[in-house]
Amino acid sequence: MNVQASGVRALIFDVFGTVVDWHGSVAREVRGLAKAKGLRVNAVKFAKAWRAGYRPAMDRVLRGEAPFEKIDIIHRAILEDVLKQFKVATLTEEEKAHLNLVWHRLKPWPDTVRGLKRLKSKFVIATLSNGNTSLLVNMAKHGGLPWDCVFSSDTFKLFKPDPGMYLGAAGMLDVKPEEVMMVAAHKADLRAAAKCGLKTAFVKRPLEHGRSGTPDLASEPEFTVNAESFLDLADQLGC
Amino acid sequence: MNVQASGVRALIFDVFGTVVDWHGSVAREVRGLAKAKGLRVNAVKFAKAWRAGYRPAMDRVLRGEAPFEKIDIIHRAILEDVLKQFKVATLTEEEKAHLNLVWHRLKPWPDTVRGLKRLKSKFVIATLSNGNTSLLVNMAKHGGLPWDCVFSSDTFKLFKPDPGMYLGAAGMLDVKPEEVMMVAAHKADLRAAAKCGLKTAFVKRPLEHGRSGTPDLASEPEFTVNAESFLDLADQLGC
Repeated sequence: MNVQASGVRALIFDVFGTVVDWHGSVAREVRGLAKAKGLRVNAVKFAKAWRAGYRPAMDRVLRGEAPFEKIDIIHRAILEDVLKQFKVATLTEEEKAHLNLVWHRLKPWPDTVRGLKRLKSKFVIATLSNGNTSLLVNMAKHGGLPWDCVFSSDTFKLFKPDPGMYLGAAGMLDVKPEEVMMVAAHKADLRAAAKCGLKTAFVKRPLEHGRSGTPDLASEPEFTVNAESFLDLADQLGC
Repeated sequence: MNVQASGVRALIFDVFGTVVDWHGSVAREVRGLAKAKGLRVNAVKFAKAWRAGYRPAMDRVLRGEAPFEKIDIIHRAILEDVLKQFKVATLTEEEKAHLNLVWHRLKPWPDTVRGLKRLKSKFVIATLSNGNTSLLVNMAKHGGLPWDCVFSSDTFKLFKPDPGMYLGAAGMLDVKPEEVMMVAAHKADLRAAAKCGLKTAFVKRPLEHGRSGTPDLASEPEFTVNAESFLDLADQLGC
């Protein structure tokens, strides 16, 4: 048991990339659709382009330049741009609506469900995602994710890294910030949580951007825990 | 399968009395505490008096006469009054704080967990309770309640029967009101949900107020389903 993690009562999880494999899941569905429709599309580049529009859209909301919208709406607007960029003009409205919900069907990493079950035996486990509630609930049913609670951008009408997300989750769980550990594969998310007084667990996801990706996987002493997987995290937290 | 229930995608549940036995759970803990401390207290009357303060306190908030507070805070204020009423003056602060959290430890009815598991196989199942999030999350961990999602008064900063509760849950799940079924042992809750366009399931809980209680258990044709238990509800909904 990591002694710095003593006193932690709840773990809150980043979802896209940390809990589920957005890159592989989106690329796989785009590849399948392209084959079915006879489209020439690089599915890996398509997935990356779709994801790349996400952070700028949330930042516009956080800067007050756009009203709060659910990620489903933001994903759809980016999808329209990406379809133009990839010169795909033959999808029906129904096909586009279905494709947009691929983010509700993202697949867990191989260690995710077993790890979460172990962590749940000792801690409250909850999402803290920029995804919307229905997306997270559908994803959990689809992938067997055993959350105690789902916190999302539409719970707080904010996006990470706004402090209201981290402190909002602690407040709704009635625990102190230092009793909550943020779990993420992204250092910026953890640093924003640490500024609010939360503990942090960095979980390495080398394949988040596919085989050609080069994510920053270096352990950092500033984080309470650095872990290779959710199973390693469970080991380090004594579950 | 009840044909009137076709199209339902999510079930949202009243909790106190419908999912868990508040009367028996509170009376049992009060009885244990009275024995340990040598107090002469009628535990059944104590439980009823505590519960009786709950609706008036929420109504003051809904009328704008008091600010929104979590039920934990409201329960504690009522507890202080009830302790005076029952002439109990010897509890320590720690004992009072622990007793107040009995509402986090309420026991499920015998059919609850099996019924919820069956219903979860076909529907999104979520709470829609005037309890606060931490109370509902702790109760679920304590009793093994397999919610997909927890909606509470502090999700919406409102209490039932405010329409914002019923429509707020539908909105966060991204389903139409008629795709949601409110499940409750209380007719007023169901009638408020029906006014918002939700479908309704009345579940009879003859022991909600203990053996001496006389709750209204009559089936009503106005409700989409009338059920004897969560297992009967699962049968009627084809789970």
